[in-house]
This record gives sequence, structure tokens and C-alpha cells, in this order.
Amino acid sequence: MKTNYEVAIIGGGIIGCSIAYYLAKEQIDVAVFEEKQLASKSTSAAAGMLGAHSECNDLEIFYPFARKSQLAYFQLQDELKELSGIDIELRKGGIFQLAYSEAEKSELSSTLSLPTVRWYDRDNVRHEESSVSTNIIGAAFIEDDVNVLPSSVCQAFGKSAQVLGASVFEYTSVLSIQKQDSSYTIKTSKGNFQAKYIVVANGVWSSNFFHQLGLTNTLIPVKGECVSVSSEKPLLKHTLFHEHCYIVPRNNGRLVLGASMVENDWNEQASLGGIEKLIAKAKTMLPSIIDMKIESFWAGLRPQTFDQKPFIGHHPDDEGILFATGHYRNGILLAPATGQMIRDFIMKKEIKKDWIEAFKIERQKR
Amino acid sequence: MKTNYEVAIIGGGIIGCSIAYYLAKEQIDVAVFEEKQLASKSTSAAAGMLGAHSECNDLEIFYPFARKSQLAYFQLQDELKELSGIDIELRKGGIFQLAYSEAEKSELSSTLSLPTVRWYDRDNVRHEESSVSTNIIGAAFIEDDVNVLPSSVCQAFGKSAQVLGASVFEYTSVLSIQKQDSSYTIKTSKGNFQAKYIVVANGVWSSNFFHQLGLTNTLIPVKGECVSVSSEKPLLKHTLFHEHCYIVPRNNGRLVLGASMVENDWNEQASLGGIEKLIAKAKTMLPSIIDMKIESFWAGLRPQTFDQKPFIGHHPDDEGILFATGHYRNGILLAPATGQMIRDFIMKKEIKKDWIEAFKIERQKR
Amino acid sequence: MKTNYEVAIIGGGIIGCSIAYYLAKEQIDVAVFEEKQLASKSTSAAAGMLGAHSECNDLEIFYPFARKSQLAYFQLQDELKELSGIDIELRKGGIFQLAYSEAEKSELSSTLSLPTVRWYDRDNVRHEESSVSTNIIGAAFIEDDVNVLPSSVCQAFGKSAQVLGASVFEYTSVLSIQKQDSSYTIKTSKGNFQAKYIVVANGVWSSNFFHQLGLTNTLIPVKGECVSVSSEKPLLKHTLFHEHCYIVPRNNGRLVLGASMVENDWNEQASLGGIEKLIAKAKTMLPSIIDMKIESFWAGLRPQTFDQKPFIGHHPDDEGILFATGHYRNGILLAPATGQMIRDFIMKKEIKKDWIEAFKIERQKR
Amino acid sequence: MKTNYEVAIIGGGIIGCSIAYYLAKEQIDVAVFEEKQLASKSTSAAAGMLGAHSECNDLEIFYPFARKSQLAYFQLQDELKELSGIDIELRKGGIFQLAYSEAEKSELSSTLSLPTVRWYDRDNVRHEESSVSTNIIGAAFIEDDVNVLPSSVCQAFGKSAQVLGASVFEYTSVLSIQKQDSSYTIKTSKGNFQAKYIVVANGVWSSNFFHQLGLTNTLIPVKGECVSVSSEKPLLKHTLFHEHCYIVPRNNGRLVLGASMVENDWNEQASLGGIEKLIAKAKTMLPSIIDMKIESFWAGLRPQTFDQKPFIGHHPDDEGILFATGHYRNGILLAPATGQMIRDFIMKKEIKKDWIEAFKIERQKR
Repeated sequence: MKTNYEVAIIGGGIIGCSIAYYLAKEQIDVAVFEEKQLASKSTSAAAGMLGAHSECNDLEIFYPFARKSQLAYFQLQDELKELSGIDIELRKGGIFQLAYSEAEKSELSSTLSLPTVRWYDRDNVRHEESSVSTNIIGAAFIEDDVNVLPSSVCQAFGKSAQVLGASVFEYTSVLSIQKQDSSYTIKTSKGNFQAKYIVVANGVWSSNFFHQLGLTNTLIPVKGECVSVSSEKPLLKHTLFHEHCYIVPRNNGRLVLGASMVENDWNEQASLGGIEKLIAKAKTMLPSIIDMKIESFWAGLRPQTFDQKPFIGHHPDDEGILFATGHYRNGILLAPATGQMIRDFIMKKEIKKDWIEAFKIERQKR
Repeated sequence: MKTNYEVAIIGGGIIGCSIAYYLAKEQIDVAVFEEKQLASKSTSAAAGMLGAHSECNDLEIFYPFARKSQLAYFQLQDELKELSGIDIELRKGGIFQLAYSEAEKSELSSTLSLPTVRWYDRDNVRHEESSVSTNIIGAAFIEDDVNVLPSSVCQAFGKSAQVLGASVFEYTSVLSIQKQDSSYTIKTSKGNFQAKYIVVANGVWSSNFFHQLGLTNTLIPVKGECVSVSSEKPLLKHTLFHEHCYIVPRNNGRLVLGASMVENDWNEQASLGGIEKLIAKAKTMLPSIIDMKIESFWAGLRPQTFDQKPFIGHHPDDEGILFATGHYRNGILLAPATGQMIRDFIMKKEIKKDWIEAFKIERQKR
Repeated sequence: MKTNYEVAIIGGGIIGCSIAYYLAKEQIDVAVFEEKQLASKSTSAAAGMLGAHSECNDLEIFYPFARKSQLAYFQLQDELKELSGIDIELRKGGIFQLAYSEAEKSELSSTLSLPTVRWYDRDNVRHEESSVSTNIIGAAFIEDDVNVLPSSVCQAFGKSAQVLGASVFEYTSVLSIQKQDSSYTIKTSKGNFQAKYIVVANGVWSSNFFHQLGLTNTLIPVKGECVSVSSEKPLLKHTLFHEHCYIVPRNNGRLVLGASMVENDWNEQASLGGIEKLIAKAKTMLPSIIDMKIESFWAGLRPQTFDQKPFIGHHPDDEGILFATGHYRNGILLAPATGQMIRDFIMKKEIKKDWIEAFKIERQKR
Repeated sequence: MKTNYEVAIIGGGIIGCSIAYYLAKEQIDVAVFEEKQLASKSTSAAAGMLGAHSECNDLEIFYPFARKSQLAYFQLQDELKELSGIDIELRKGGIFQLAYSEAEKSELSSTLSLPTVRWYDRDNVRHEESSVSTNIIGAAFIEDDVNVLPSSVCQAFGKSAQVLGASVFEYTSVLSIQKQDSSYTIKTSKGNFQAKYIVVANGVWSSNFFHQLGLTNTLIPVKGECVSVSSEKPLLKHTLFHEHCYIVPRNNGRLVLGASMVENDWNEQASLGGIEKLIAKAKTMLPSIIDMKIESFWAGLRPQTFDQKPFIGHHPDDEGILFATGHYRNGILLAPATGQMIRDFIMKKEIKKDWIEAFKIERQKR
């Protein structure tokens, strides 16, 4: 078994696999270490809404990064299918971000100022989606906030990376990282490996390595609970979104309702109370959803940083250690741009200064 | 393949299998015809509470029948384990039937008049079950309303009957029943069979045969939706019961919440709205249940007759046709007594007149 | 509830839903009656290989019909996605039909005579699919025998039909069909319905209606058992096929192995013996499959006619009754052409005489 | 949250939970730290055969320890049901350990020398179990090698311990153990905890701590794959056993087939090849099993030490660290005796010298 790599990535979720893919494309010798299977944790729990506009509250720095990542998906769709055989289920249609009052409409004003976003009043929304609640006054229609199937994206990144030469070690726990001269030894449940660069990309569990690497940062789990439902008739073509909750139509005709927000709960199962709140919320958007049949439910842990922006960049004291974690609600959306940014760090290409500053792990609370 | 039987039973749920068991014990040559698998429909959806007292609103006729059936379970437990190797998971502990007001306590008065039932005031209830809502004023404690695992009871009846010589045909639809001289031919998806007696025991789907047999009776499906949850700590030793809803502790440490009541819905899946109501109801009994984790959910169809009592007895014009169906909320509880009563009809033993009158299919609405 | 339709279709599998779709496109008022849910039986058990060439042993009549149906899928893909939001997962790549000896190669000669089929010798096959067994001598490469996801096709047909005005009744058993003057009454578990035309399209369970309608035909169930597996690395881009067994790559990166052939078994579960044979067979095609991980397994019942061709056409004595059933191994492949043919019967359009003769229910064994 | 305990146990499998139970019974303040949920890994993958006699190849030391543990289960059954409400499904009946030749019968001679074991020749075996292969020459009948449901035992230990005052932290990873004066600090994903004693009891993943604690021992995973099947008729009352493979009847009427032996594979999913071998083996014992229906399949990792005996005892240089791991094929059987032995170490009670020597981690290969 080969035990020496240029780059070792800890974490086989969508972030780790995106990085592996962009590095493998450049013929960089990379290995991914995943404790369970690819896409088995938070990645597969996500709904996959690419909310560059709807999740954005910072037009100057976050939006251009998110938008770049969103646009990358349109290219990745064919590229990854060709290499891996896996369809990422990029689904057009866009989002209606609902407003129930003039106050809520005002809150949408910065979103509405973006060139690809338009205001629809109630009748126009209901012309497109006749089952939406009559209590809305209208909605921002964001055509570009499409969605993907996250577990398929992650698998497609991972298998494409393998086709391009990367190694993937599933069911392999990383126990410790040790520096030795100009390289690192990582101790795993499958033995020791060496690498020139280490990328810590295992979501909320990255915290465990922060301490070991001399940092005081932490990540807080914010559990999200979801339900998937089916109906006899097709009910929805676009995603509905309101106050962090969404109803996303899938390629198989089902709707995914997500997601609750439970701070500091490490338990990865859905609770009765979480599902109750989710149903209550979904009813306000789509009253007839109450008659739909439950197919399944699940939960995942979002990794939250102090300012809800990810950590992407070098260890402050050690160029060989990189972080790509803490993506909170936006891991699926930001995966391509994060993969490209880590690739650029390792290849010493130019990176936008704003992004380096905004995402470096040693930034301070403002 | 043997195609000639003394008795052919249509339906491999708990009622059909109980009948098969009691007949096979008497060396009567019996066959069960089941469209899917034993216990695959309403039987396995039931929680298995043996509510002879808590579900009873007729002390004169229904209660003695239900009580006799309940007591039969204590004997069946060992008998069926010995023959089939299957444990029916009879679980002692009993029920607390909660009252939230003096008015609700009054409604319990007839239940409380029974010798095995006692009133507990709030503090005493909470001494036994410290997580019960403080909003109750007390509860009727019904020690004998124990519970069983319905799918195991049904399997145990079915396999014990086989050990005693009965035949079971799974994945076999019965298409029609035709009289020929002194016997019947039933046409099935596996070919034709002959029998001297036919017992229609396939729950809400029995309606289909009523019409074919010249009767105008009908059965209405009343869907019940359930959820099963788990907790880190054991939360409950006794079943809680209030207004048709219950929380039943299982042998594996889980709690089963049931069941909603949706009239005239043939869809066998749980709906978002049903689960929402169930959670709301369970919270009023056991507030901390909200933090418990959902394990699974399901639904089943109760067969409801016009007066909510079962149809047990002969066809009014044809001694060879028997009915054992329409058990509504009480199929698990009444299975043993129903099996015995059908056996007694076929063996021409004496049966209590009251029961014959109360359960005959040609009785009139009063 | 509307109870009067132009056409009533019995069966909500891929055949019934295709018919509903093609009729609804012509503004014909149609209803589908399905005992469980759309696509819940044999349809969802199928692998979805569109083997117009590989499953073909009759170039004169069967092949043009199958080929027409196969080509229709390329148009349906976008049409159905637009109407229903459901992606049918049409997956290009084609099939390698393997030959292990010169004798087997000879058996492929009629397939190889088709314009779109080419012979690949072993090295060329293994250049495309490096994991294929070295025991082959080569393979027929059939680029047009693509595959689809059958449950998605069926759902997409059904929901598109509804968008175009059709009605779908799930959880509705059809109990009997009765002629009354110029229309039919069908008795169902949800009450009576009237229709001018009845289409019997419920697969192997159609037999039940044959008898009721005065016909002596029968359908034999041929159970097919399948397994789905996943691997760490992508293993296959094309479908492999040999002696009725196939390994089909899916859009989500998994492989589906199918399918066993168990005659006259109505049990819809996979057996130990069936899975054992399937693994043995798959190993001969793709030896390293032995290390892949099992994801799930299932079984379904193929409806087999006496000559393994479907029954498509009128009742010999009754123009208002139509049959579209008995598709055996080819239900997914033939669904579009079957839907079109039934539409043409009802609209009294011209139909190829050969096909009418080949598929009529009253044809004789030759 | 209380963060200071007398004893901290790493691992919430059956070993960790048994220890917690026996300590909590003595009013010792104990906490269990489990990365996922109780019983979620190897414990729930085990079949639960208590093979004190059938798995034994060392009558002097291992047998008395295993036998003591086996007998403890008979007492635990009621004790744990009373405290936790959970039934451990102790199932009598015993094992037939099959012999297919005189040579195999000879190998059973030491087992047959035990007082509770008797030889049955073929006819006698088949009188008890008529479906057993006619190829056997006979079997050792071991009445006391009963079985339990391992996940229920583990849950029952864990919840009973909680009722007695123990704490259980699920979804809590232990990252490191550090000594500080006379106590230890364990760093976890939920923060730091202190304890006077640490017990490492997390199966094959214990290796990770060995290195951290200055030991060179290792544990090798030996994956075991299992299948569960159901039949129409009850097929088996006793467990069948041959060459490490068994067929165990469950309380719910199903049979569990286990288990394959795959060395050094960390992947916790069942493979095609493993299931194939298992079916082949089961057929030789019970030919008609081939017709049974597959219900589910799974895999788990047995922790194997160099001599296949567990590590139970102190760290050689540190009295505060204890090990209870490496139970290989016998974790369920040995859980009670292991819990008692660790309790006795901590309470400084007398322990049989033989057992201390045989199970100490610093013992040498002989």
C-alpha cells in the first residue's frame, strides 16, 4: 500500500472530495481519509439548495465567492458525469423566497437588487405555484439558485478524483498529525501515512484537530433535521424558502423539507420536537403539504464558526497545514470554490485578498 | 398440492391466524389464504395494547368478551412459544388512563367501578412515572391492560397452527367464493380450492366479499398512524392513555405513540398532518417526549363497522360462510376470543347468546 | 368525486401509466386504478435495461416494435421532465453482450447483423471495461441499448398524465368489471366507476380478470431477484449482459445485478438460493464484483404468456375491453410503444397489422 | 453538566455497558462515553450465541470464565428487565454442533467430555430437527449454550446502569487521555471530563488508545457478515453450529446465519463474496434454507488479539488505566464476567490469579 502522498485530506464529505478532485485534475498526488464512507455524514443530510442569493447577507465578499461556486456547478455537471458516471442531479427551476409582510419584503431588498433576482407579487407566484399559501404578499424569484443532490455530488467528486489518480481510504480514522522536518505523519487506524500538505476538512469534527494543532478555535454543531414526502399529484416545481426553511422538489418527484436549527446537539438523529417544528413551518408555506405522505427523515450536523463564515486557508504558523471547514449552512454551495481555493494555496497561485482575509482561521470577531 | 380442506380462512392477520390456531388444536383440517405475508397489514401496525378495560364502554356484553380474550393471552404466551419458538412479548405493567379535569375523571367512573381498576391522584401517578405531565389531576390505573407485540402474536398463531397441521398460503389472493352443493370453491391466484366452511377474516378488505355474498354491509377504513421513538434514558414503565391515544413502552426500550384516526382513507402511509397531531397529543401526556429520537413511523387501516363492534358469526342465509372481521380498534385484544368463537360455531358448541346477537352481521342499527 | 371516465385503466405500473400518458396527451378523459402505489410492484423491481437488440430473438416483428419503443424514450426524457419534474435517468453507454466461446459468438450473429451493433474482441472489450473477465472471447457492443430508472419512468408517466388532466386512484382495488349497455361499471374498494373503455394492465395479476371476462388465457409469474452493490472505485461504465443476467451501472454509482428466473413463484421476496445464483453468475462476468458491498436486494414478478410475447389488443368479443399485459422481461422497454398502440386502438387509428396479429390475446400457440 | 466521575468508560458496546452496570450496582460513580449510540457497532452485529462449550478450546482457564459468564445471564434476565424494562430475549434450546465425519466427531471429544454435553447420532438429531442435512453423522448437543439478543442486552445494561445512577454520553468521541496527578482528564467532543479510573472498552478501536498510552499491542479487525432469513414454516428450534458458522433461531421466528471471517478489513458493510460463502456454508447444514427469504444482512468487526483471548486488566505501569477489550468471537458471552472482573479490580476484591495472568495485556506470545 502506498503511504506517501503530496497532499492528505482528512474528511470524505463534499468539501474534502471537491479538494481531491481539483488537486487530482492538476496531477497532484492526493489521498482522502474518511472515517466512514464518502458522503455518509452532513453531506448526505443536506438538501442541496445552491442559495448563492437566498442565503447571502454580504454582497461584497461572500456573494462573489458563493456565486463563483454556484456557476462552477454548471460546468461540473457534465465533467463529473463523464469521469465517474454519476449524475449530480442539477435541477433548474430556482427559488421563491417568500415574504408575508411589507417588512419581510423590505428585508429582501438587497437580494432584490441583484441582477438575476425579480419580485413576484402574490398572484404571479401563485400562477407559477398554485399551492403556495395565500398569506404571502409575494416572493423574490431567484432563478439561479438551483439545487443538486449532495450525496451524488460528493460521490462524483470522489470517484472522478480516483479516476484521475487520487486515493480514497474509507473506514479509516485519522488519530493524530505529527510534523517531521518538511513533511507530516498522520497516524490512522490503517497505519501511518506521510504527506507534504495536510488539509483538515472533516466538518464539525475538525475541532478535534484544532486543539492538537495549537489553535483555540472551535466549531459548534448546529443540527438540521429534514423530512422527505411524496404526494399523488406533483405539487411544486420551484423551491420555496422562508426564514431558513425550504421545501425542495427532487428529481424523483419527492419534496424535501428542511431544516431545523438545533445548536450544540451532537446527536445525529431527528427528534420528535424538531420534526414537529418543521411540519409547522412547512404548512405556512404550502398548506396542502399536510396531506403528503412521509417517506423518510434524517438529521445532520452543520459546522458553525463564530461568524458563520468558513475557515479556508493556512494554519497561521504552518504553511503545510490547511483548513477547509466550518461551512455551516453552505457546504454544498461553497464546495467547488473551496476546492479551487485550496488548490490555489497548494499550487501557490494568486487568490483574491478579500477571500484570504475573510476566511483565514486567525481572523478576529468584529 | 392439497386443495381440499375442511375450513378455508381468508386473511392471514391476527384474526385469521387465531382462528387457524384454535381449529388446528382440534385436529380440524384448515388452510389460511393470505394475499401478502402473515401479519403484513393492520396487524403489524397495531400497538398491541390489550385494553379490555380502557377501551371498554359497554360493561354488559363487550367487556366479558374482551376480558375473556385478554385472559387467554396469559395462557397463550407459553403455549405458542413452545409450539412456534416465537415470544409474543406479553408485557406487564398496565395502563394509566389519564384525566386532566374532574369532568374527565367522571367519564372514567364506569371503568373505575371494575374490580381490577384503581384511581391514582397526580402525585401517585408521578411517583410511578415521574415524567408524566403535571397538568393531569390523576389517572385510572388498570393493571391488567398489558400489551403484546402484535406481529409476533400473529406469526406465533400461524406457525403454531402449521406445527399442528394447518396449511398457510402466503402471496395468494382469493378472487371469488362459489357455492357447489355442500361445499365451496374458492378461486385464488394459485388455483382453485374446496372447503366445507369459509371464514372471511381479512379486515377492512372483507367488504369486497360482502357484496359478492349478497350482503349490503360495509366496512370503513379508519387509518391509524404511529411513531416509534427512543431515548437515552428509560422514560416510561407503564402505558399512558388519553382520548384514544397511547404511549406504549416496548421490550426493546422504545416507546410507540399511536394512533391517529383518519376516516375513509385507504392510503396505508403516514401523512405529515397525522404525525403532527400525534406529536401534539403525546406532548400533553409526556412533555419530555419532544426530545426523543424518531426511530420509525407507519400506518394501518382499522376496519370499522356501523356500531364499532365486530362481525363474528354465520352468514344469515348460509351456515357454511362465517365472518370474523370489523374489529376496529380491538383486533389484537379480541383475537383469542374470536378464534374460540369461530371454532365453537364450526364445532357446533354452545356459544353465549348475548355474543351471538351482539356480533351477528345482520344486526340492525339501534 | 368524478366517477365517469372515457377510459379506465387497471394497474398503475409502467404499462398502465404509459397508456394514461398517451391518452391524456390526446385530451382523452382517463383514470388509473392502482391497488397500492404507482410503480410499487414489478416496475420498480426491474433494472431498466432497454434491450431492444440484446433481448431480441425475432427480427421481423418484435424488433421493429421494440426499437420504436426504445427510440421513443429519447423524446420522452425531456417531455416528461418538463411536465412532471421527474428525471427518468436515461443513461447512455450501451451494453456489452458477452461471449465466452465461438458457439456463443455464433448465437449472437443475428444481433450482430443489426446496423447499430458491432463485435469487440476481448482486448477491445477490456480496453473499455478493464474489470471484465478474461474468460470472454469478446462481446457484441450495442450502443443503443441504454437504460432508464423504471420507477422514475412510471412516476413521470403518471404525474405527467395528471398534469394533462388524467385521474390517478392509488390504494384502490378493482373487484369486478360489468358490462352495461355501451359502457362498463367497475366495482372498486372506493366505490363504483363507469367507463366506455377498460384497459387491463396489471401485469401478472391480470389473469384474475381474464377468467371473469370469459377467457382461458393465463399468465405465469416468473420471479426475478436483484441485488444492488457499491464499490470504492467506479468499476463499470457499460451494462454487461450474458444469458439473461446483467450488471447495470446506475446514475448514483451503484451496480444492479439481475435477475434470477424462478417460474411460478408468487412470493415477492428474494430467496437465499436466488441471491446465491445471482452472485455466482455475476462473478463470471466481473470477477472483482465479489469485493463490492451489498446495498440492497429485492424481487419482482414478470408476467409470462405462453409464447413470451405480450397481450396487446381488444377482447376477441368485446371492443370496449383492451389488454396490455404479459410483457414478461420487456415491460420497461415496451411501455412507450404499448401506450401508443392502446391509444391508437381507442382512437381507431391505423396500427401495423403484424403487431395486431402478433400480440392479440386470442392468438394460438404455433 | 457533571464532569467529574470515579470511573470513565470508553465505549458503549456490550462490554462497556456491562462494566457500567456492575459498577453502578455498587454505587460507584461511573460514566460511559460512546461515539455513536449504545450497541451501534459490533455488539448489534453479533448473533448472541452464548457458546461457553461450543466456542471453547481451553478447558482449564477459558472455560470456567466463560461458563461463569454464561450462568450470570440466567440471573441478569430478570434483574435487567425489572430495572430497564428491556427483555434480553434469553432463548433456551441449546446448540447442535454438527459432525460430518468420524474425524470431526473426534475433534469434539473434549467438548463431549463436559458434563452438560451429550452425543446425538444422526437419527436422533433429525428427530429433533428434521430439516438438518442427512450428511451429518451426528452432533454434540449442548443444552446450556443458549442465546440472547445482543443489542437488547447492551441497551438493558446501559439503561439499568442509568437507573442506578450512571451517566451515559452518546455521540461523544474521546480524543485523548491525559494523566494529572492522581486522576485523568479525557478530552471529548463534548468537552473535558475527569475520572480516577479509565476503562478502555471500545473493541477494535481500542488500538488507538494503546499507542497513546505507551503500549505496542494491537487489535486486528476480523469482519463477520450475517444474514437474517424468514420462512413460511418454522424450520429450527435449536442453534446449528459447524466450523465457526451457525444458524440461530430468534424469538421472532427468523433465523440468523453467521458469520464470515474476513481478516483486516475495516469496512463495516457486507460484501457479495462474504454473503456467497455464508449461503454455501448454511446449505451444508440445513439444505432447505435455500428457499427461505432474505430479511436483512449486515457486518461487524470482531477485535482480535494475538492469542484470541481478551485483554482484561490494568495497564502494566498505571493502576488507573484498565482494559476490557479484544473479545474477538466471544464479546456477548464474556460480557458479564468481564464486567464483574473490572468491578473487582476497581474495588480491589480478590480475582482468580489464572484469569489475571491469562488476560493481562502484557502477556507474551507462547
